[in-house]
Amino acid sequence: MRLLKSLDESTLEHIGRELHSFATGLYSICRSITGAGNRQTLSAIRERIPLQVFEIPTGTPVFDWTVPKEWNIRDAYIKGENGMRVVDFQKSNLHVMSYSTPVQATMRLADLKPHLFTLPEHPDWIPYRTSYYRDEWGLCLSHRQMQVLEDGDYEVCIDSTLEDGSLTYGECYLPGRSSEEVFFSCHICHPSLANDNLSGLSVATFLAQLLSARNLQYSYRFLFIPGTIGAITWLAQNRDTAARIRHGVVLTCVGDSGGFHYKKSRRGDAVIDRAVAHALRHCGEPSEILEFSPYGYDERQYCSPGFNLPVGCLMRSVWGTFPEYHTSADNLDFIRPEQLAGSLRLCAEIVDVLENDRHYCSRNPYCEPQLGRRNLYRSTGGDAIGVEISARLWVLNLSDGEHSLLDIAERSGMSFSAICDAAELLSENGLLSAIPAAER
Amino acid sequence: MRLLKSLDESTLEHIGRELHSFATGLYSICRSITGAGNRQTLSAIRERIPLQVFEIPTGTPVFDWTVPKEWNIRDAYIKGENGMRVVDFQKSNLHVMSYSTPVQATMRLADLKPHLFTLPEHPDWIPYRTSYYRDEWGLCLSHRQMQVLEDGDYEVCIDSTLEDGSLTYGECYLPGRSSEEVFFSCHICHPSLANDNLSGLSVATFLAQLLSARNLQYSYRFLFIPGTIGAITWLAQNRDTAARIRHGVVLTCVGDSGGFHYKKSRRGDAVIDRAVAHALRHCGEPSEILEFSPYGYDERQYCSPGFNLPVGCLMRSVWGTFPEYHTSADNLDFIRPEQLAGSLRLCAEIVDVLENDRHYCSRNPYCEPQLGRRNLYRSTGGDAIGVEISARLWVLNLSDGEHSLLDIAERSGMSFSAICDAAELLSENGLLSAIPAAER
Amino acid sequence: MRLLKSLDESTLEHIGRELHSFATGLYSICRSITGAGNRQTLSAIRERIPLQVFEIPTGTPVFDWTVPKEWNIRDAYIKGENGMRVVDFQKSNLHVMSYSTPVQATMRLADLKPHLFTLPEHPDWIPYRTSYYRDEWGLCLSHRQMQVLEDGDYEVCIDSTLEDGSLTYGECYLPGRSSEEVFFSCHICHPSLANDNLSGLSVATFLAQLLSARNLQYSYRFLFIPGTIGAITWLAQNRDTAARIRHGVVLTCVGDSGGFHYKKSRRGDAVIDRAVAHALRHCGEPSEILEFSPYGYDERQYCSPGFNLPVGCLMRSVWGTFPEYHTSADNLDFIRPEQLAGSLRLCAEIVDVLENDRHYCSRNPYCEPQLGRRNLYRSTGGDAIGVEISARLWVLNLSDGEHSLLDIAERSGMSFSAICDAAELLSENGLLSAIPAAER
Repeated sequence: MRLLKSLDESTLEHIGRELHSFATGLYSICRSITGAGNRQTLSAIRERIPLQVFEIPTGTPVFDWTVPKEWNIRDAYIKGENGMRVVDFQKSNLHVMSYSTPVQATMRLADLKPHLFTLPEHPDWIPYRTSYYRDEWGLCLSHRQMQVLEDGDYEVCIDSTLEDGSLTYGECYLPGRSSEEVFFSCHICHPSLANDNLSGLSVATFLAQLLSARNLQYSYRFLFIPGTIGAITWLAQNRDTAARIRHGVVLTCVGDSGGFHYKKSRRGDAVIDRAVAHALRHCGEPSEILEFSPYGYDERQYCSPGFNLPVGCLMRSVWGTFPEYHTSADNLDFIRPEQLAGSLRLCAEIVDVLENDRHYCSRNPYCEPQLGRRNLYRSTGGDAIGVEISARLWVLNLSDGEHSLLDIAERSGMSFSAICDAAELLSENGLLSAIPAAER
Repeated sequence: MRLLKSLDESTLEHIGRELHSFATGLYSICRSITGAGNRQTLSAIRERIPLQVFEIPTGTPVFDWTVPKEWNIRDAYIKGENGMRVVDFQKSNLHVMSYSTPVQATMRLADLKPHLFTLPEHPDWIPYRTSYYRDEWGLCLSHRQMQVLEDGDYEVCIDSTLEDGSLTYGECYLPGRSSEEVFFSCHICHPSLANDNLSGLSVATFLAQLLSARNLQYSYRFLFIPGTIGAITWLAQNRDTAARIRHGVVLTCVGDSGGFHYKKSRRGDAVIDRAVAHALRHCGEPSEILEFSPYGYDERQYCSPGFNLPVGCLMRSVWGTFPEYHTSADNLDFIRPEQLAGSLRLCAEIVDVLENDRHYCSRNPYCEPQLGRRNLYRSTGGDAIGVEISARLWVLNLSDGEHSLLDIAERSGMSFSAICDAAELLSENGLLSAIPAAER
Repeated sequence: MRLLKSLDESTLEHIGRELHSFATGLYSICRSITGAGNRQTLSAIRERIPLQVFEIPTGTPVFDWTVPKEWNIRDAYIKGENGMRVVDFQKSNLHVMSYSTPVQATMRLADLKPHLFTLPEHPDWIPYRTSYYRDEWGLCLSHRQMQVLEDGDYEVCIDSTLEDGSLTYGECYLPGRSSEEVFFSCHICHPSLANDNLSGLSVATFLAQLLSARNLQYSYRFLFIPGTIGAITWLAQNRDTAARIRHGVVLTCVGDSGGFHYKKSRRGDAVIDRAVAHALRHCGEPSEILEFSPYGYDERQYCSPGFNLPVGCLMRSVWGTFPEYHTSADNLDFIRPEQLAGSLRLCAEIVDVLENDRHYCSRNPYCEPQLGRRNLYRSTGGDAIGVEISARLWVLNLSDGEHSLLDIAERSGMSFSAICDAAELLSENGLLSAIPAAER
């Protein structure tokens, strides 16, 4: 199974447009860590891939946490004395602080202000704020909106409910020949934010779609969950499954125009860390590898010391480092079809490495086998050899049962793809034997 | 016990002045590897800290060496034909080569010259020379003094004695909860040299004073010894004690205006090497780490292959690299109150790391514990976290019983102090358990 | 045994001239992978060193290969219609593609051209081409020669034979105290090419000559073989001997004016890799260390996974990177006496490291021994020490049975030679005991 071979330029261009259009369809849904918006988002994903949706009841203990009440919201606004809405949830769901308790009151501006959030340094943008675990309400607005508010009485309404219900998440499981799993996780808890949320879940959805009809070595699990509490809930409910995860990636912020960043797993030298680093080195885009740190997305939970799973985090621009992060400027213009497609392509490269990495033994370990009589060498001596023959020599030299194809790609500096092609050709010619994973 | 917390700016300023004044009081004493000057120096130290003084008799075999005769000197000079002293020990004890045999003679300048030492490249400075292990006499003078000597007869006198006596050293031992030791060693064998001798013994004295009333984890041993033969003698007499040394530092040249240099122990990766490197990285002064080499101060002996103790050497400017080294220009102006205080502060940081470094286990290893409901997290979601919360996340993530606080400080890039604060707070909140050293 | 001590400047100058003259004598011989030219070359080598010549019959199976037919050639040319030779093997043996099948025909230029090889980018040079393992014939000529050929009929003759015979190689074996071997391999299969062939075999011959009357620790084996098939044949016939190789170097391209390049063995950290790197660091010429790759000279075979011998490849300019490579411009002007001598000198340094590297134990491991009373230290204290005393301190400090002299040279940054001198002096003074290899 070589995923990348099915993704030529024009296919990728087409997929890029589809990815952006998929994200566009989800943009206006008001997602949070629980609630109807998440169910609606998962329904849209289920139109593309097989998805099992789970509902975990409010109050369920999950490690040190408890599944919270379900939050739903219908409307929110601030009305001036003239009855006009000066802040209106119907225009942007970012206007309400996520998980706000319900409010219906009239109050003076001075009393209202402690509940208002703005970004003075970006006066046209609405900030994104949350208050999941303390009873609080708030409204977010642009600094310009705030500046024109005159003293007086304002009617403030947040028509939300916080009730017993459930936390909702979705899982797409694609069985492979082995029960060992490759794991992709993305969060679905942000409202109208495009890079931080929609880009990751869109690429994950399309990657699952690409993989769904394939003959897979590993089993694949795609998780669509609310951040933090979703990962904690899933881990608490799936400890046996978590133990089968061999390689994992958290996908987020993969739609903006920045180069790639990969934050390594807590282990730092897991195969997934090496596979992603290798794919990045050969992907043709700028990229940077970051050391693990315990702050970020759900790798925080997957890499907590009790689990210590080999799960890293793939991003383009790093959360918190671009000004649009957690603001209304992280919108559909901020993510681009070609960047989404490039991220999907990189994921395909990573999957290709994981699926095809194996150990071979040369069947002629003493001296080189005579490639010439098998038409696997150049014809006239004295001339240079090319990349293909070089890859064959590397594979033959390092196929001692100790080096995987990824090891060989790393040591030779050649792409995994070239090394893998060489190994397949040499195998067909009877020069290599694959070593079954069980015998290693 | 957190020593550094007791050393604020103004305290350090005060201590710096005291350190310089202490060194000033010792400057004119004529120290050597044995003799009355050393006893006098130890008496001054004993006024500040509990000090046991040992006398090891001449002739005592100490490994491949023998404790030498005791050298004492009362006067030395060269007199011209007019009876005037042209070189006078009473003006500077550097004028006599240390361990010179007694001389009383009149001789022509040509015969005298082989016994005279000057520094032509620094014509105003007197060099410092010694001749411990061969019967020899000599006088050191400035090159200008030499240049004005006219041909003629000179009376030369060195009123010294070399007799059976003893080698003198002092030990300050501060017992802690464990019999394992932290060890500081400094030499007390140089006459009027400030950076190379007085700076180290002054900082060691004041550090012992700071520690003396504390509740200590480790036991501390401060050694005030003549260089080379003193260290050899101590090691020969204290092999069992040496075996208890867990961390050690030779202190020397810590008063000049240069940045810090730390020469690693022979092991190169001992905890002391990592602790000092960490303290230097966060001390706010320029610093450099040097690899071990078998030439230098008494780390030569502590790191000899039979002992191989984890003992490095802390300096500001490195001996031999500054022109004032081993000359009369290494005087009380060459060392400064604020530099002496900064060196003491660094030692306090090192002690803090050693005293507080331990292993913890998170009591919630599966996923993060919910810091928010314990008021250990920020209040509004969506915003950045600060250093304190970041330190808590690092400590929780790496407290798997395998990582010490120093490991966590190194991996996180944060100061040991911030990591230690976080660990204490998390412990108080029941989120961490300290692992007793015995169970590791 | 310290080889380098016998090679002073003027000796080396003399040897350089001899080396070049030896190569000159072999230049015009038409060598290939088999045939009379190789025997003639080995005869010349045997005039200088004891050499056993082996003949392995055509058809002998050697791993995945078979010893090929023996190729011999008497004449080759292209004649124009006027009967004049326009290409003439008698002028340069590069004109015929090595291993060409015999031809005697008259043909039109258009039919001839597919059999002609030129270098348009270097119009005056004749390329070097081979066709060992496919029945083919060809002629190589300068591009200028080709350009003046007019349409018409040409008589083409290659008076060669391909018949059952044998593959010829030579071995020089110098027994030492141990049966473990140091191994030098060079190829003797190129016709009139100086750097790529003659430089290596000349330096190897002279190195064997230098070693031949010595009292050696290791046994030495010098192999003079045709490339690839020769190494494969030797390995197939000498698997037990190969198992005794402890350190090996392939010598090639060691006569040009470039700096040194050493390609590490497949192991990458073998003692030979460290010994060569050390010698290069201290040889006073520019040099570069290259990682192993499975393409190059016969290290390809020695480092095949079944053997994985500690054999690297020493070159000056790297094959394939200089334009003269595999052309008639790689001639006797391209190699220089002083460069050949410098390469021999480097080999001597490498041999010195291998021969003298051993482990010592300090007999005074506790503190430094008193060097002064043995006259192994400076006389006046307070002054700097020099390189010699520094080397003594390093050797004493690291002679704990765990560090070899090469380890000490590497860690101290000093030359192996200085460290070795110190160890010998300290041994003579009873301060060190050599550890017999058997006890390690």
